[in-house]
Amino acid sequence: MGLARRLSSRRLYTGRVFAVDLDEVEEPGGVHAQRDVVRHSGSVAILAITGDDRIVLVRQYRYPVDAQVWELPAGRVDPGEQPLDAARRELEEETGLSPAQVAPLVTYFSSPGFCDEVMHLFRATALRPVPTRPDPDERIEVAFVSRDEARAMIARGELRDAKTLLALLLESERGRSAQ
Amino acid sequence: MGLARRLSSRRLYTGRVFAVDLDEVEEPGGVHAQRDVVRHSGSVAILAITGDDRIVLVRQYRYPVDAQVWELPAGRVDPGEQPLDAARRELEEETGLSPAQVAPLVTYFSSPGFCDEVMHLFRATALRPVPTRPDPDERIEVAFVSRDEARAMIARGELRDAKTLLALLLESERGRSAQ
Repeated sequence: MGLARRLSSRRLYTGRVFAVDLDEVEEPGGVHAQRDVVRHSGSVAILAITGDDRIVLVRQYRYPVDAQVWELPAGRVDPGEQPLDAARRELEEETGLSPAQVAPLVTYFSSPGFCDEVMHLFRATALRPVPTRPDPDERIEVAFVSRDEARAMIARGELRDAKTLLALLLESERGRSAQ
Repeated sequence: MGLARRLSSRRLYTGRVFAVDLDEVEEPGGVHAQRDVVRHSGSVAILAITGDDRIVLVRQYRYPVDAQVWELPAGRVDPGEQPLDAARRELEEETGLSPAQVAPLVTYFSSPGFCDEVMHLFRATALRPVPTRPDPDERIEVAFVSRDEARAMIARGELRDAKTLLALLLESERGRSAQ
């Protein structure tokens, strides 16, 4: 801990993807509080752009929101793994594409009010095909959409995932400042 | 449930801000899985723009990420509350400003891989002052930043909150298409 003083901490749940802690803390400014927190190991997502300027999206069923969701290739950072390596790994596993160039886009907190998840967004180019290794409980559809199609999907409300919207908006801004 | 068949469900934790369920489900495509899910009542955030074209930001300590975070005014949707009313309420509580005009910007999933949180973003203008009613365990600093300052904060990595980044990028895009 840096800014707060943790008076006590109880791990209430340990799952495969996240854990839950109930902490008693003294926060900056002397606020005394009980905080329940979702603990997550961190996530990566990767905006991959093909040689013919298409964006790689994946569609999969997401049980928490009970919907098929279009997203960037993404996943969790494994213990000890660097975010950049995780992003590259997830892209390969989900789409069968390996990038020669990967650069960081932005790193942000997904829901800092109750969850410590940090999302690392990357941008990848110079893609080449490799064998896919999807997780056994994943059913993933891959699509290659033009920038105009991506914009139209946002306008129609078909892109509803935070990281994907954020990466596409950053990419759109980047395109303009390069002009 | 719409797309999945829930075979069993156990509520493992009920907190003030979120709950945790462990569900056994059959997902589309016949995938049989155990899913632990963070259940959240939904959130709102509001991009408020003053008469002299400044953006209203709030800074507060967020225990989950142990950091002082610059964000849009935001909060949870109360049971039975409409998202637009929640957004208006949070703006008033945190900043003492009440908007005459509020329009939806975008609605998205914060972390659809493990959490059902839906974030409703709004845009507010025509602000007038009202008395503030901060929560007793909140210490909130309010700032009014120009568009250039907001852009510089993003470039310096000082804006690290998903909803805030997303709203500012949407606003920036809106500004250009209006030109």
